[in-house]
Amino acid sequence: MYDAPIRDMLFVMKELAGLDEIAALPGGEDATPETVEAVLHEAAKLCGEVLAPLNAEGDRHPSHWDDGEVHASPGFAEAFRHYVAGGWQGVQHPQEYEGQGLPKLVGTPCVEMLNSANLSFALCPLLTDGAIEALLTAGSEAQKQRYVPKLISGEWTGTMNLTEPQAGSDLAAVRTRAEPQGDGTYKLFGTKIFITWGEHDMAENIVHLVLARTPDAPEGVKGISLFIVPKFLVNADGSSGARNDVQCVSIEHKLGIKASPTAVLQYGDQGGAIGELIGEENRGLEYMFIMMNAARFAVGMQGVAISERAYQKALGYAKERVQSRPVDGSSKAAVTIVHHPDVRRMLGTMRALTEAARALAYAAAGESDRAHRDPDAAARARHQAVYEYLVPIVKGWSTESSIEVTSFGVQVHGGMGFIEETGAAQFYRDARILPIYEGTTAIQANDLIGRKTLRDGGAVAKALAAEIGKTVAELGAQDGGAFKSMAKYLAFGRGAFESAVDFVLANAKRDPNAVFAGSVPYLMLAGVVLGGWQMARAMLAAQRLMPHDPAFYGAKIATAQCYAEQVLPRALALEAGIVNAKGDEGVLALPEDQF
Amino acid sequence: MYDAPIRDMLFVMKELAGLDEIAALPGGEDATPETVEAVLHEAAKLCGEVLAPLNAEGDRHPSHWDDGEVHASPGFAEAFRHYVAGGWQGVQHPQEYEGQGLPKLVGTPCVEMLNSANLSFALCPLLTDGAIEALLTAGSEAQKQRYVPKLISGEWTGTMNLTEPQAGSDLAAVRTRAEPQGDGTYKLFGTKIFITWGEHDMAENIVHLVLARTPDAPEGVKGISLFIVPKFLVNADGSSGARNDVQCVSIEHKLGIKASPTAVLQYGDQGGAIGELIGEENRGLEYMFIMMNAARFAVGMQGVAISERAYQKALGYAKERVQSRPVDGSSKAAVTIVHHPDVRRMLGTMRALTEAARALAYAAAGESDRAHRDPDAAARARHQAVYEYLVPIVKGWSTESSIEVTSFGVQVHGGMGFIEETGAAQFYRDARILPIYEGTTAIQANDLIGRKTLRDGGAVAKALAAEIGKTVAELGAQDGGAFKSMAKYLAFGRGAFESAVDFVLANAKRDPNAVFAGSVPYLMLAGVVLGGWQMARAMLAAQRLMPHDPAFYGAKIATAQCYAEQVLPRALALEAGIVNAKGDEGVLALPEDQF
Repeated sequence: MYDAPIRDMLFVMKELAGLDEIAALPGGEDATPETVEAVLHEAAKLCGEVLAPLNAEGDRHPSHWDDGEVHASPGFAEAFRHYVAGGWQGVQHPQEYEGQGLPKLVGTPCVEMLNSANLSFALCPLLTDGAIEALLTAGSEAQKQRYVPKLISGEWTGTMNLTEPQAGSDLAAVRTRAEPQGDGTYKLFGTKIFITWGEHDMAENIVHLVLARTPDAPEGVKGISLFIVPKFLVNADGSSGARNDVQCVSIEHKLGIKASPTAVLQYGDQGGAIGELIGEENRGLEYMFIMMNAARFAVGMQGVAISERAYQKALGYAKERVQSRPVDGSSKAAVTIVHHPDVRRMLGTMRALTEAARALAYAAAGESDRAHRDPDAAARARHQAVYEYLVPIVKGWSTESSIEVTSFGVQVHGGMGFIEETGAAQFYRDARILPIYEGTTAIQANDLIGRKTLRDGGAVAKALAAEIGKTVAELGAQDGGAFKSMAKYLAFGRGAFESAVDFVLANAKRDPNAVFAGSVPYLMLAGVVLGGWQMARAMLAAQRLMPHDPAFYGAKIATAQCYAEQVLPRALALEAGIVNAKGDEGVLALPEDQF
Repeated sequence: MYDAPIRDMLFVMKELAGLDEIAALPGGEDATPETVEAVLHEAAKLCGEVLAPLNAEGDRHPSHWDDGEVHASPGFAEAFRHYVAGGWQGVQHPQEYEGQGLPKLVGTPCVEMLNSANLSFALCPLLTDGAIEALLTAGSEAQKQRYVPKLISGEWTGTMNLTEPQAGSDLAAVRTRAEPQGDGTYKLFGTKIFITWGEHDMAENIVHLVLARTPDAPEGVKGISLFIVPKFLVNADGSSGARNDVQCVSIEHKLGIKASPTAVLQYGDQGGAIGELIGEENRGLEYMFIMMNAARFAVGMQGVAISERAYQKALGYAKERVQSRPVDGSSKAAVTIVHHPDVRRMLGTMRALTEAARALAYAAAGESDRAHRDPDAAARARHQAVYEYLVPIVKGWSTESSIEVTSFGVQVHGGMGFIEETGAAQFYRDARILPIYEGTTAIQANDLIGRKTLRDGGAVAKALAAEIGKTVAELGAQDGGAFKSMAKYLAFGRGAFESAVDFVLANAKRDPNAVFAGSVPYLMLAGVVLGGWQMARAMLAAQRLMPHDPAFYGAKIATAQCYAEQVLPRALALEAGIVNAKGDEGVLALPEDQF
């Protein structure tokens, strides 16, 4: 059902993301090649044997609400016990709080596998990871001690409570109130919606991290604070105590990820939900962004993960299904459909998009590790800036791509793809949430333009473009159609990317509507080109390693060629959608009543 | 819920598809401007008031199977009686069989409305239309008299029975047997799957048109015959008689179009299903193609229709939902999201894709009318060739576009789009079948390459490219950013299209794998460019008509500009995916075990 692509993962980790260098940085001692391989194989076993078989089951039997309680899908609670017993929740978290302290680059393939196996299930640990990150960064030492080890052990799980009915993308509109009680605690009142795993029966307690306003807080995003509101209050000895005043009043009926309960949580209907402040008042958004950045990267990995799973499923079908004779007349009999050129185009494009998104995300994880572990402060800052530039792209582009890949997955199956029992349709439905939650693609694109491109005057973007230029030059020194195609279209892509960056820098002030109309195309263009750059680096590495295994490395080059010819040229189309926009023309100028 | 875009439809019919000229051809006398408008308004009323409200209801309460009987979704049977009582099944069919004999160009917007209102419902008349076409073309006069009036009146409905478990796209693999009984009838034995509206309780009889093999038939597609197998045998007086030996053994559980029953039909389990031959033995595929071509065009219209509906839904939400302040600082308060540039980009692209697909389909319908009605035989042949070239594009491109448009429809709704009660997700699910049934996009693309491009040496394709060149020249004579963008990208698009046609012509024999690997990109490229051509013609017409209504015609120009900048440049990317393919490189050369 799911066979983790460990060899592909290790290739990317070692050849593109710099695993050996990262393992050599302070704190990387445990990431020996043997440990890393062992971790990946153990993760693959758990995901393949325990979690993947529950995926379709969870879709057929969604989590369900019953008078305030939510029961997880059949088998999920037991699988969760397996998961936490294996120590998987702590892979990337510090050893002092019972984590394993491995680099993000090593944790990332584990996250990918978990999400390939079972996206709905994986959301629970994903949100818990975010809660841990926020606590570690902004919590007091007492809060860290009280909550983090229990979250890592899986006795408790974590959630993020941002959205309210009137406050979706716009957190300035948050209205949930937090009233100080004079004893250091607060009472919270309000309604939060779209809370993933906001209520369930897989753990003994749930630690809600909640955005709310104190009575005298300023308007807008500068008046939001972050609170810990556990489902059960925590006793002095760390055990769970009385039930807190937070109730799950319903869960949503959704297009996909049906096993993952999406809760409406009501705070304070019986006098107020007791919460404690994290960090300082009015700095909640800043802390939440820590959590969100971790979560956004992880959602990007969900895009990679579901693409990989959809590819495996489609490939399995294409190798089994016999239909029609080959177009080149090489057989009088019908053949398996993997022999038909259009099926190869679809499978090749699925695989190329998946491998490129994986490579870009793992490379970003490597940047994050260097940003945390490099002994040189200037290097840390440089890597942090690159990581932050890449996060909205990993989130936005990988997830948008996953819509395309899972749609190809349905198409490869033909009519069977539309039948739910086949399973391809579930990936198509599940994937559709990815470009929406943790910030829609437009929100990612706003971040990419505002915080990541304009703020540094395009410095990171231009530095990346310069690196791409070096890779184009290296490609030029190689022979063969694959390298020629890649050199040609990566050079076009780099030009389109630079032209888009220049347009953004030149017009953001004088014509913001035009720039933001091109924001998502800019994000997609960056993804297409940076993903292509990683594929180019992959083919150069594969060429070097070819003698060790011509079949495996040859496939890397073939996949990169497919990317170069089928995906990279989209950069030209995306560029046109960015640089032609003018705020006083076309749909931007059209009066509302003419839409 | 659904407001038929009658004015947009009439604009396309008159300014782009040549309604006035077609009405002036022999047999077009009834298509007076007053009649056409009246027909459209009546259709809009039925679709908006009766059928659209049943759409979500049908999704929530799919048709269901009960011991061989299939019960249509609540309200469907009554709505079907309304539909046939209004004479809608007969709009395009001959008056001598109780139809209205209106041009296809007039019937097409009615088909669009029906499908916008309720795609699942519309499939029943769509298949009946196909059965009528096949009977009219290949049936004996007695068969026509016996079946067609009852199909037009809606007393009976029709189906197409092609697919078998081992015979999906490859009809050569059909195994259903038809044994002659010596009395002119045959007994049929076999299993047919994916039979849309193959069993239901909305009409008193169902006329199955079934592909099967007679005992001595040759292998492959040259040994397939077409049979009429009614659910109830038809008595000499035309009334329904004994139950025939065809049973619905199950219906499918599908991703979308849940109200439309997709039946598995078992023929001959109790001694043989009685059938009568249509036309001659072994010419079944040829007759079925008549039906399929009509059905393929209609499925293309389904793509247009569901795109329009998804656009209306997303637009309604965008005009109501208040979220975030505008990026240009024009308001301190949050605004409706239709003011945000990325939402405008999404809505604009949805609308541009929808209008272009509509324009291309209606133009094709106009070609079909001229092919039937032009007094000049050479002109008829010319129009028929253009129509046949356009059918796979209308089918393939409009339906692939509908995936993108309905996906945008979900995205515009943000998190609410993923909640089933919102309704946007249904369109996304329903649309997913469109590029699959009646021949997948790859099958359409094979047709476009084999029968429509290679067979005439690219003559029709080149003639269309020449016409596009004239339009580019006309655009050059106009001022303004919209015309400049369209002239630029339509010229690029035309170049890409010609380059793709040249590649196909040059390589089909010596490297068929390469050509067929680019078959779907070629189809999509043709759609993007020919759709762009229609948008260019629309903007020229709008410019001419501008003084009559600057707001309406200005919106046409703005939408065309959006198409020019956001959609047409894709031609460049698609071209790269076609002309670089070589059968001995990349994924085409990769050994199967390396996929």
